[in-house]
Amino acid sequence: MRCGIIIAFVLAVLACLCGCNSTPTTSYSAEEQLIGGKLSDLGIVLPEIARPVAAYVNVVRSGKLLFVAGQLPIREGRVLFTGKVGRDIDLHQAQEAARLCVINALVALKNELGSLGRIRRIVRVEVFVNSADGFTGQAQVANGASLLLQQIFDEAGKHARMAVGVAELPLNATVEIAMIVERK
Amino acid sequence: MRCGIIIAFVLAVLACLCGCNSTPTTSYSAEEQLIGGKLSDLGIVLPEIARPVAAYVNVVRSGKLLFVAGQLPIREGRVLFTGKVGRDIDLHQAQEAARLCVINALVALKNELGSLGRIRRIVRVEVFVNSADGFTGQAQVANGASLLLQQIFDEAGKHARMAVGVAELPLNATVEIAMIVERK
Amino acid sequence: MRCGIIIAFVLAVLACLCGCNSTPTTSYSAEEQLIGGKLSDLGIVLPEIARPVAAYVNVVRSGKLLFVAGQLPIREGRVLFTGKVGRDIDLHQAQEAARLCVINALVALKNELGSLGRIRRIVRVEVFVNSADGFTGQAQVANGASLLLQQIFDEAGKHARMAVGVAELPLNATVEIAMIVERK
Repeated sequence: MRCGIIIAFVLAVLACLCGCNSTPTTSYSAEEQLIGGKLSDLGIVLPEIARPVAAYVNVVRSGKLLFVAGQLPIREGRVLFTGKVGRDIDLHQAQEAARLCVINALVALKNELGSLGRIRRIVRVEVFVNSADGFTGQAQVANGASLLLQQIFDEAGKHARMAVGVAELPLNATVEIAMIVERK
Repeated sequence: MRCGIIIAFVLAVLACLCGCNSTPTTSYSAEEQLIGGKLSDLGIVLPEIARPVAAYVNVVRSGKLLFVAGQLPIREGRVLFTGKVGRDIDLHQAQEAARLCVINALVALKNELGSLGRIRRIVRVEVFVNSADGFTGQAQVANGASLLLQQIFDEAGKHARMAVGVAELPLNATVEIAMIVERK
Repeated sequence: MRCGIIIAFVLAVLACLCGCNSTPTTSYSAEEQLIGGKLSDLGIVLPEIARPVAAYVNVVRSGKLLFVAGQLPIREGRVLFTGKVGRDIDLHQAQEAARLCVINALVALKNELGSLGRIRRIVRVEVFVNSADGFTGQAQVANGASLLLQQIFDEAGKHARMAVGVAELPLNATVEIAMIVERK
């Protein structure tokens, strides 16, 4: 009997250790409702998933990390914000473009995880801004993305970030945003 | 004796758990042959490893992830594709350049892992395209890389991706590609 | 009693396994002194932490990885190196700018980890160079960052790297550098 207890204990330890690495099976309804409420307060309705514009996938998992492909400011298959900030489009519109990229990233993440409540942390946000000569406000453009993420996820939305001004973007988009996210 | 059995069981559990995190010692000859066959079908001969053009290394491992440094379309020490897409070089050539960057990344990975059969997943591909004013086909250029990876690795080759148009690249290369890969 | 020995053994195994994943509590004073000595030899005094220029944080941890936000060549709140390499600023100055970005990244890492001795490896360095038309020496600019990291961390400072020439950078900075680091 002592032996049985010990084996049970060992099995429990094993189960616990394995559990640490497995996909959680618990419900994330509380976090999901919270995040849903915030999206609703912000007037954001998550659209249908946008297909990648080429031969790749939107999200790849590796361990706890999810790598989200570069998102464009696309809605219903159309790029809504095109051209270079400081020449074709102003800062405020570019911030809207950045928000739309984040919304598309969230759609991709929800599609992958089932619920945005499964996100533990927004780890890194990479912001590529289609920039006219002399436009140096990439950080302000990127704030459109960063502030939205913090509004939705609070502390879990605080991320490391890089923002640079690129020469051109696919489909003449104004902004492209890629993300790295940690899941629960 | 019961005690001996239990200790043996615990040790087996331990070995199993440790084994999960250690570098596998099994042969990857089946996957290696499969990948070798595909490379051969595609007419690709992996060249000798290219030295990094400066003070860094080609691949760094961290846990299950391998970070591959930005690769240029170099063969035998010479950049084969130079200049800006849409001005100096056309889309088709730029796609060839992207393929060559991927081939150099695979050479670096094979050199690090011993066998491409040890790759579990291509996680992320970052494509920087040297772009002329008004060239917005970065996604098509990047497809040169993405399609090759899917041809070689099938499902494991499907990756998250970002593609942007940059102002200039080292040595006037047409494309630079960095990758993140998960090993088995 | 045999049972007690076995349970003690199981607990020891458990403690060992958990210990592998926990934050180490040992002192890093030896490595810290070594790194401090090297910084001192290089004439580098780590300044106070620079605030992010916008709505994000400087470092995010995920597992063993630390993601450092894009750093600019800022000292005491002022961007010391501005403009495009090859037009407004020369290669040597741009290398100094890259070094200053790395120093700011180290300040952020020290602030997060308590000690630079807790760094196991510099995994990846991403160098964005504000480049004039026709400037293709991004690798040389990035060497300013890479050589400093190797001088400070020796083998642990050898990293994968990408270097590209961008159209513009925030605050007209000459260089922006983001990093991925593995902690002990």
